[in-house]
Amino acid sequence: MTTNNPILAEVLRGSAVESLHAGALAIVDAGGAVHTALGDVDRPIFPRSAVKALQALPLVASGAAERFGFGDEQLAIACASHSGEPEHVATSAGMLARLGLDADALECGTQWPSREPVLRGMLARGEQATPLHNNCSGKHAGFVCVACAMALAQGREPAEFARGYVAPNHPVMREVSAALQATTGFDLAKAPRGTDGCSIPTYGIPLRALALAFARLGTGQGLSHEHARAAQRLRKAVAAAPFMVGGSARFDTLVMEALGERLFCKVGAEGVYCAALPELGLGVALKIDDGAVRAAEAVMASVAEQLLTLHDAQAALLRGYSNMPLKNWNGIEVGTVRATVAALTAVPNRHPAPGTI
Amino acid sequence: MTTNNPILAEVLRGSAVESLHAGALAIVDAGGAVHTALGDVDRPIFPRSAVKALQALPLVASGAAERFGFGDEQLAIACASHSGEPEHVATSAGMLARLGLDADALECGTQWPSREPVLRGMLARGEQATPLHNNCSGKHAGFVCVACAMALAQGREPAEFARGYVAPNHPVMREVSAALQATTGFDLAKAPRGTDGCSIPTYGIPLRALALAFARLGTGQGLSHEHARAAQRLRKAVAAAPFMVGGSARFDTLVMEALGERLFCKVGAEGVYCAALPELGLGVALKIDDGAVRAAEAVMASVAEQLLTLHDAQAALLRGYSNMPLKNWNGIEVGTVRATVAALTAVPNRHPAPGTI
Repeated sequence: MTTNNPILAEVLRGSAVESLHAGALAIVDAGGAVHTALGDVDRPIFPRSAVKALQALPLVASGAAERFGFGDEQLAIACASHSGEPEHVATSAGMLARLGLDADALECGTQWPSREPVLRGMLARGEQATPLHNNCSGKHAGFVCVACAMALAQGREPAEFARGYVAPNHPVMREVSAALQATTGFDLAKAPRGTDGCSIPTYGIPLRALALAFARLGTGQGLSHEHARAAQRLRKAVAAAPFMVGGSARFDTLVMEALGERLFCKVGAEGVYCAALPELGLGVALKIDDGAVRAAEAVMASVAEQLLTLHDAQAALLRGYSNMPLKNWNGIEVGTVRATVAALTAVPNRHPAPGTI
Repeated sequence: MTTNNPILAEVLRGSAVESLHAGALAIVDAGGAVHTALGDVDRPIFPRSAVKALQALPLVASGAAERFGFGDEQLAIACASHSGEPEHVATSAGMLARLGLDADALECGTQWPSREPVLRGMLARGEQATPLHNNCSGKHAGFVCVACAMALAQGREPAEFARGYVAPNHPVMREVSAALQATTGFDLAKAPRGTDGCSIPTYGIPLRALALAFARLGTGQGLSHEHARAAQRLRKAVAAAPFMVGGSARFDTLVMEALGERLFCKVGAEGVYCAALPELGLGVALKIDDGAVRAAEAVMASVAEQLLTLHDAQAALLRGYSNMPLKNWNGIEVGTVRATVAALTAVPNRHPAPGTI
């Protein structure tokens, strides 16, 4: 693995640099033309949860979502890494209920909510975590829905057909991988394969191909008719229900609440971010070498700041991540996490400075 | 800040590298001779909590610890980043009680215990965190003890004298900084200064100087008589009460339980590790560029494995960190965090391979 990627984010303590985050960033249009390439954008990386929207395309494209009456909230949570808040749990449970199933159908494993007040409340009440609290429960409920629709079309028993849906060779996961291959244009048969946190396969795909997939997701260009329609439906769903994609005080939720359909962005584990900017026809994919989320968020925020024309409040929100204060146990500001000049200058500024509009 | 440090640890998912951690490592003897230098060991880095044992030297050297009857547990927790378990809270509270004080004297701020079962138990019982749960409470109780001894020697009111002890110019913190400067040989007046998580100053010091300080801590060479005696007392205390330095399932505690006085090691925030290996007369200091603890532990474990002659069980314990399996939400092994060949080969192997002894 390369060691030559540039420093994209840095952590200051006082005025001194304490820690550094190298990484790579690709911004590509739907025709595959490279807008920005920083670092090695051709080495396969595991995109993890950053591609959940691509993995959700079959849910819509197959007609399964429509068959079971899924609306914006259900489609948004199918693209989510949520914080396990009550609304998330209820939405995932509701999706399974429409299939006549419950949490037992989920194969993502049990995870406690990442949202601390929710976790504390559960513990105080003596409650146990379930697979519905897993950040991937909505994505998995979507997979189970695809399985049920497939089963019904074949006259098979849905719950039985769905079982084992996380395996790479299950018909559902084959459909999901096909969507990933079609949108990225990357041959997954040649890709490194790992197992994700929720047990589905994750494939190593270059940032350049991931950025292309998100440019296509944002524009529909280069996609099949079914995938283009599904992409548009998912983007609208996420813009209408951004809380479902993350949760309280989460980057993806806050940014999409502020920007609506202008930006679809999604974090992945180990420092990955992918985004679509439909109005510019661009897709973005980045990976922090060391896997740090704090750096991935800072760089994603700075890319959006650079590329989009923003109101002051929108710019301030993004700036809170691209130049984020660090506080200590006494609440004293002791440092900053920020995108580096290298990251900022690599992305040509498309708009006048905030406040000058 | 340099970008040329070598990759010291890597994260695999399946058989593919998912994430990388660059860093620098210095191993130095008490005379300042460099045993191993990997990456930039001359750039100042913030050692954070890795130097708590150096910061605790005045507690012993001043006679304050003896005056208030502190034993192994009190001295060990003065060097600790503990997990906030009941034994830690009770020990820090007991130190303050001997001074006629309570948690109100601590200026470290409030932090919830990092040990999850302890945290869950507290939440289930509706308890609140206090400064005694802060991982630094023992270090701060030690600072307050030094302040009280100073006050009594000057006929001043102890609690009043102690107030503001975290400030760089308070007499206690001046004594602490003097110990840091004396042991590292680095002029702190020229060092970058930041504020630590617990509000005391942290100074930028090169890894080479930090490794020297730990070689001195382990041997007493190059230290004043008082510091040498204090260093020996602290090492014995930590070896006798390693639970106090970390807690359940913590690297420092487990390794020092297994190795006793053969290894003193201490983690610091943002990917720092320092260690003394008295039998070899060596000190170790390392910093992971990006601040990742998982990488710092893997490299520290591999350094100890390489340098020390170990029984099989000791080697297996260290190997569990230098080559650590990663499991997903279903408990499936999906990858590994491990020290790289570059890290391993840089440290000359001082002993026959484990199992061949």
